Amino acid sequence: MKKVLVIHGPNLDLLGQREPAVYGRVTLAEINSRLRQVARKRKVGLTVKQSNHEGEIVDLIGKAKNKYSGLLINPAAYTHTSVAIRDAIAASGVLTVEVHLSNIYSREEFRRHSLISPVVKGSVLGFGAGSYTLGLEALIDLISSSK
Amino acid sequence: MKKVLVIHGPNLDLLGQREPAVYGRVTLAEINSRLRQVARKRKVGLTVKQSNHEGEIVDLIGKAKNKYSGLLINPAAYTHTSVAIRDAIAASGVLTVEVHLSNIYSREEFRRHSLISPVVKGSVLGFGAGSYTLGLEALIDLISSSK
Amino acid sequence: MKKVLVIHGPNLDLLGQREPAVYGRVTLAEINSRLRQVARKRKVGLTVKQSNHEGEIVDLIGKAKNKYSGLLINPAAYTHTSVAIRDAIAASGVLTVEVHLSNIYSREEFRRHSLISPVVKGSVLGFGAGSYTLGLEALIDLISSSK
Amino acid sequence: MKKVLVIHGPNLDLLGQREPAVYGRVTLAEINSRLRQVARKRKVGLTVKQSNHEGEIVDLIGKAKNKYSGLLINPAAYTHTSVAIRDAIAASGVLTVEVHLSNIYSREEFRRHSLISPVVKGSVLGFGAGSYTLGLEALIDLISSSK
Amino acid sequence: MKKVLVIHGPNLDLLGQREPAVYGRVTLAEINSRLRQVARKRKVGLTVKQSNHEGEIVDLIGKAKNKYSGLLINPAAYTHTSVAIRDAIAASGVLTVEVHLSNIYSREEFRRHSLISPVVKGSVLGFGAGSYTLGLEALIDLISSSK
Amino acid sequence: MKKVLVIHGPNLDLLGQREPAVYGRVTLAEINSRLRQVARKRKVGLTVKQSNHEGEIVDLIGKAKNKYSGLLINPAAYTHTSVAIRDAIAASGVLTVEVHLSNIYSREEFRRHSLISPVVKGSVLGFGAGSYTLGLEALIDLISSSK
Amino acid sequence: MKKVLVIHGPNLDLLGQREPAVYGRVTLAEINSRLRQVARKRKVGLTVKQSNHEGEIVDLIGKAKNKYSGLLINPAAYTHTSVAIRDAIAASGVLTVEVHLSNIYSREEFRRHSLISPVVKGSVLGFGAGSYTLGLEALIDLISSSK
Amino acid sequence: MKKVLVIHGPNLDLLGQREPAVYGRVTLAEINSRLRQVARKRKVGLTVKQSNHEGEIVDLIGKAKNKYSGLLINPAAYTHTSVAIRDAIAASGVLTVEVHLSNIYSREEFRRHSLISPVVKGSVLGFGAGSYTLGLEALIDLISSSK
Amino acid sequence: MKKVLVIHGPNLDLLGQREPAVYGRVTLAEINSRLRQVARKRKVGLTVKQSNHEGEIVDLIGKAKNKYSGLLINPAAYTHTSVAIRDAIAASGVLTVEVHLSNIYSREEFRRHSLISPVVKGSVLGFGAGSYTLGLEALIDLISSSK
Amino acid sequence: MKKVLVIHGPNLDLLGQREPAVYGRVTLAEINSRLRQVARKRKVGLTVKQSNHEGEIVDLIGKAKNKYSGLLINPAAYTHTSVAIRDAIAASGVLTVEVHLSNIYSREEFRRHSLISPVVKGSVLGFGAGSYTLGLEALIDLISSSK
Amino acid sequence: MKKVLVIHGPNLDLLGQREPAVYGRVTLAEINSRLRQVARKRKVGLTVKQSNHEGEIVDLIGKAKNKYSGLLINPAAYTHTSVAIRDAIAASGVLTVEVHLSNIYSREEFRRHSLISPVVKGSVLGFGAGSYTLGLEALIDLISSSK
Amino acid sequence: MKKVLVIHGPNLDLLGQREPAVYGRVTLAEINSRLRQVARKRKVGLTVKQSNHEGEIVDLIGKAKNKYSGLLINPAAYTHTSVAIRDAIAASGVLTVEVHLSNIYSREEFRRHSLISPVVKGSVLGFGAGSYTLGLEALIDLISSSK
Repeated sequence: MKKVLVIHGPNLDLLGQREPAVYGRVTLAEINSRLRQVARKRKVGLTVKQSNHEGEIVDLIGKAKNKYSGLLINPAAYTHTSVAIRDAIAASGVLTVEVHLSNIYSREEFRRHSLISPVVKGSVLGFGAGSYTLGLEALIDLISSSK
Repeated sequence: MKKVLVIHGPNLDLLGQREPAVYGRVTLAEINSRLRQVARKRKVGLTVKQSNHEGEIVDLIGKAKNKYSGLLINPAAYTHTSVAIRDAIAASGVLTVEVHLSNIYSREEFRRHSLISPVVKGSVLGFGAGSYTLGLEALIDLISSSK
Repeated sequence: MKKVLVIHGPNLDLLGQREPAVYGRVTLAEINSRLRQVARKRKVGLTVKQSNHEGEIVDLIGKAKNKYSGLLINPAAYTHTSVAIRDAIAASGVLTVEVHLSNIYSREEFRRHSLISPVVKGSVLGFGAGSYTLGLEALIDLISSSK
Repeated sequence: MKKVLVIHGPNLDLLGQREPAVYGRVTLAEINSRLRQVARKRKVGLTVKQSNHEGEIVDLIGKAKNKYSGLLINPAAYTHTSVAIRDAIAASGVLTVEVHLSNIYSREEFRRHSLISPVVKGSVLGFGAGSYTLGLEALIDLISSSK
Repeated sequence: MKKVLVIHGPNLDLLGQREPAVYGRVTLAEINSRLRQVARKRKVGLTVKQSNHEGEIVDLIGKAKNKYSGLLINPAAYTHTSVAIRDAIAASGVLTVEVHLSNIYSREEFRRHSLISPVVKGSVLGFGAGSYTLGLEALIDLISSSK
Repeated sequence: MKKVLVIHGPNLDLLGQREPAVYGRVTLAEINSRLRQVARKRKVGLTVKQSNHEGEIVDLIGKAKNKYSGLLINPAAYTHTSVAIRDAIAASGVLTVEVHLSNIYSREEFRRHSLISPVVKGSVLGFGAGSYTLGLEALIDLISSSK
Repeated sequence: MKKVLVIHGPNLDLLGQREPAVYGRVTLAEINSRLRQVARKRKVGLTVKQSNHEGEIVDLIGKAKNKYSGLLINPAAYTHTSVAIRDAIAASGVLTVEVHLSNIYSREEFRRHSLISPVVKGSVLGFGAGSYTLGLEALIDLISSSK
Repeated sequence: MKKVLVIHGPNLDLLGQREPAVYGRVTLAEINSRLRQVARKRKVGLTVKQSNHEGEIVDLIGKAKNKYSGLLINPAAYTHTSVAIRDAIAASGVLTVEVHLSNIYSREEFRRHSLISPVVKGSVLGFGAGSYTLGLEALIDLISSSK
Repeated sequence: MKKVLVIHGPNLDLLGQREPAVYGRVTLAEINSRLRQVARKRKVGLTVKQSNHEGEIVDLIGKAKNKYSGLLINPAAYTHTSVAIRDAIAASGVLTVEVHLSNIYSREEFRRHSLISPVVKGSVLGFGAGSYTLGLEALIDLISSSK
Repeated sequence: MKKVLVIHGPNLDLLGQREPAVYGRVTLAEINSRLRQVARKRKVGLTVKQSNHEGEIVDLIGKAKNKYSGLLINPAAYTHTSVAIRDAIAASGVLTVEVHLSNIYSREEFRRHSLISPVVKGSVLGFGAGSYTLGLEALIDLISSSK
Repeated sequence: MKKVLVIHGPNLDLLGQREPAVYGRVTLAEINSRLRQVARKRKVGLTVKQSNHEGEIVDLIGKAKNKYSGLLINPAAYTHTSVAIRDAIAASGVLTVEVHLSNIYSREEFRRHSLISPVVKGSVLGFGAGSYTLGLEALIDLISSSK
Repeated sequence: MKKVLVIHGPNLDLLGQREPAVYGRVTLAEINSRLRQVARKRKVGLTVKQSNHEGEIVDLIGKAKNKYSGLLINPAAYTHTSVAIRDAIAASGVLTVEVHLSNIYSREEFRRHSLISPVVKGSVLGFGAGSYTLGLEALIDLISSSK
């Protein structure tokens, strides 16, 4: 069975309580349960991690190479500042899809720039929790077609 | 039955023959047929237009207000230059999802800026024809949940 | 009798329904009727056009040369992006006044730059429909004094 | 009777002799007399001040709050450099219209930026002395309609 | 017989009357007649179009693929703003030469940037009508040598 | 007894009535009375000035050299535009603390730059009237420790 | 009893030995002891943490929500680079005051920009260890007045 | 007898005591006395003014037109920020020479830009008090040769 | 007989061996022989120089004034860095045409800027050796028509 | 015996498998073994660390002060984003040499800027594993000559 | 007897014939003769060189160290592009004065930046040939006072 | 025997006397003697040149192609300004190593940009004369391994 790694970046553990006007009231647990539903339906294994540590995220991606067929990542704040995560994704060679809850291009200037986008296959953004499920569907389609 | 308007921007009529290394070999007819399949399955009506004319696209969106519940748009080259299309989307008030075949953020500098993103609900990019079907699914979900 | 050409740029056909917080509730028909009142009072002929097409606006201006003594234009979104309309105004040599419903300099960054301003005689902005009537009065004054 | 304050910024006392190619041959006295004519016709009181001192202009605006229904200002050189005058206008809450003799957007780069525009209701520019009379008409219209 | 498509961009229909100090007194008809002379001498077919509409120019180029061996284009104002025409040229794969009447690099700042140059084979600029005939000669040479 | 000079920059005379959402409802008189309380408690003399005139503020600072042990200044709008006040502070050599009612770094772009900060010892900002009393405490501490 | 969390950012454990010309000779232990003195006097509880890890600081702030009434933070180097800490402060909703030992606005260019300032209530900078005690006083005042 | 106006800008009254490492130990009185010596030798009248007020300097220049044949100005801090003084010089039409004690182009970035330079005839900078005497000699030469 | 000076800038002596993917396999000798052919046909004299020295090129142009009717120059690397050659062309007043083997606007960013373009009559670029022959034809046409 | 600390930054644990076209096929273990050889030959002790965590690297450097005579660091991705590591190096006062496998100045724009370079003694870049051995030789030379 | 080296930069050999509207009609021979007059009067030796070669100017300055007490230089076009001449002046340690015939700050944008200014003692610009004689006087004064 | 060409750029002939605080007291002769020692030890021939002339350096590199296996260059000031030397290195195809005495990235802004770095194999900087010997060792290693 193909396996997918899901990484939630910094502050996503606070979802539901964090600025609900921007990020909605859905919690991370609910998003993960929706992702597991999609995974079951599409018959792929799923490992889910959340970390506030750039280095930990780099560690996770570095070790993903032979264990996972795909990576679904919401790099959150590190989207805009982490060359290390960008390099990790490029180095791992794992098929990657980037998701964002909000439409980062309609927010503050410094959020309109993604260091991660240039190294991922595709991006889904602005659909709240829906960005995750759509992103996972897209990632599984990519894995299937690249077999 | 809810109706959705699909607008393909400039040069998309050339799909399949246009720089296949960047845009793939799928033709616009094939994309439209996949979109119609999704629409049938989700039971929404679909009107599909392609235009190379910025003004024509503005016309279409301006008249969409009371006729369509959602707009799926690939603004192509006008993504980066058209304030008029941006204003039309904002003026129409129709729920809009933006799609791109390629990951515009991994291409030339001038393609890494979207005038359209700030006025749409969400974006899907980089999945080739898959960007369209995912985008339509997402748009229909949004229409359903905003009822 | 002197004749004046009025050109309304893209999306102005939606006035009254388009983002009333920014553009007010007056419709284009009402603005045109006020303009006709001024024209009658000042005894000048008036031709009024609205177009969402940059090329059509260029066509109109290109043919204005010997037919009109003045041009009143609200270039709307094309204010910020159209070198073609700028060149058309310069090429036509017709006395031109630029108007804007809103104060474009208190809005988004990209609206604070006008490609059109450097080739017009004067500008009136921020007075809603009043920008049009003031602009027409000013234009007729200019025509009179340049006779 | 409603009262309007007119402020002429720095160097405007030299009008008529100052670079006539740019600013024309009309003197400040003539402009003031035209403004008084409009005021009489429209039945509003008029106080006219000219100052080369940024601080004095700030003083005048700061004290305008309960004495004037409107402010007509040509900030001249301070248009481009004075945050203090901008803050004074915002702080006073008085309805303000900005006028310029020349079309500042067709001149040197540093004149194409106005710190004042974002805090005024509307602007009239490029019509020489006509900018003042049109601006005063517009201001009185605004005062009337905001009663 | 090889065929070449000539496209004249916006406002070029006004040639001869438009700012003669910049663009000279030659009319578009005269330029076309000189181009036809070169074509006859070099034994290539010639189709000549002028349009003020970006979309129309994109249409023409999109349909040029199998009908023309070469494209001679003066994109005029669209040189500086049209990603759509750039994409059309790249998508069509037709050998393209760009010409300009004036030396755009000695004019206003915003004219010193060409979105079109990076996708054409070569450029000729600054020789007035001569830019066209030189450009056509060069294009026919390229067509011959690429056979 | 050590003496401290307090300078309130432009528009601060309007405090309490000026945009209370940004600046609060405390008046300048109340702030001065709180400052006098601190001064009495800490046994330093206090001279308080408010001026809308950049030149006047420069005069005051230029004459402060041998009369005051410290300067507490809220340069307000001149924070962002006055090289003259910056030079005066550097020239006077008097220990200076800068205060701001609001957090200038969370406001408009042009307010996020202080010409004054590089020449003061320290800054207190964002605490409303509290910025002044904290700033005065800090200044008196500095004076004491530099004896 | 209200509780306050104090976070010292990267390299502050080296205080006293680290570039004393810039940061002074006071050690972190001495600063903490001064802060505890203020806390005792003002009767608030105090938890003090130092970390060189961006992720750890994000963790601490994320868990602060219901445990602390206020956060006093010297983000040190992360002031200029961490969107994650900025997001954590905004997400936690805890009243926050930012302090800096040195006047960051009189140092290298890249230190003159704070990603943190826009999300804190107020800032105190340039007073060495005094920045901390003044900042804590200010924070406790804010907590008291927001009760 | 020809007359020359000398204007010393802000903070120059502090010369001799102000940052002697940058500005030297010569006082303004000494500079003025050297200037008077040159004036006597060259047989021109001399009026000397110092002001910290931008508006006052604008006033002085505005009234200089028919009274003085030349203006020698050290705009000091206003060099970098005053469009009003620039406009005054251009408006007055008086022959102007700009002087600076220090070499402003080897100092802080913001001092390397002069708003005044483009409207003066020539500049002398970096020679301390010598800049003034050389500048006056040059100005008198210009006056003589333009007679 | 009219005479034309041809100047080949730095590194052009290496043509044929230098990065043939960019510059082609034609040698400088071959280009010169083609140019001589054109010159003979058009009956103009030709002097050809190659130099890697900016100063030598300036010398050559400075002495060209009364000896040559036209200058054909490929400034190569000096296109982007030499104000001296630009000044030399402007100072000489000789009719000048600029040529480039490659399309400099489709190469690295720093090659997309020409200091030379603003002072030449016209430019031909992107046609390899053809740029030279076309450029010489154009130059001779210009010389003929300016007689 | 003198001791040297070697720090390998993020993703360097993947060397050999990570984008071999850019980074070569040498593994980190092989580089470390070459470094140990140099150390033995030069008779210095060597401690080698690899970490993906910015904070951990800051910890390591912070504790290096009295334990190591030199630091050899490849900051990898943190080169471009970490003010914290920069501050740690400056704070530690340990002699530091920066190495890079690839020539970072011939890669993407954002890699052409090093926050670390200004605080190190020297840099070696572009020689693959050779950068490390050369860097270590240079560092040991510096340690020897600074004894 | 003290000796002074005068260096005239590129294209200055063309003075008198080169764009007289900008540079005047005085020839280099006349300027040199005026300089010799000043030198005789002030009793200093004078060596005068003109070169279009950056390297030659660097050579001259490099050898000036022990032979000349002062350097008077008009770097002309190299003012804006030569780091090598800047380094040569700094390396030589010879007292240097920079002169310009025209007021470079009122010309094209790229001429408003001097790489040379930061390493010279003072500058004289805008007085035509007078810049040279004033500059030489100033330089001799500096030499005298630094003895 | 393999041969290496060493090029010392502008002003390096002054080493030892030129700003010793920045460049040290070692002379060029001493550096050359150390380089010869390395060359003897590694058994490669060495040709050493110093030139202040950009064109001469371009000449040297252009002729190096078949005569030298490697180029060691310290481009000094031309590092930041010479596209011609960059093109020469790329055109020659000779293996090149760039060295700098000082750490150019910790100096003035304009020295932090190298036009040469992108076309060399590797760089060594900041080790004084040691940069040369290390650079030569590295170059010889590269030559050996590329055999």
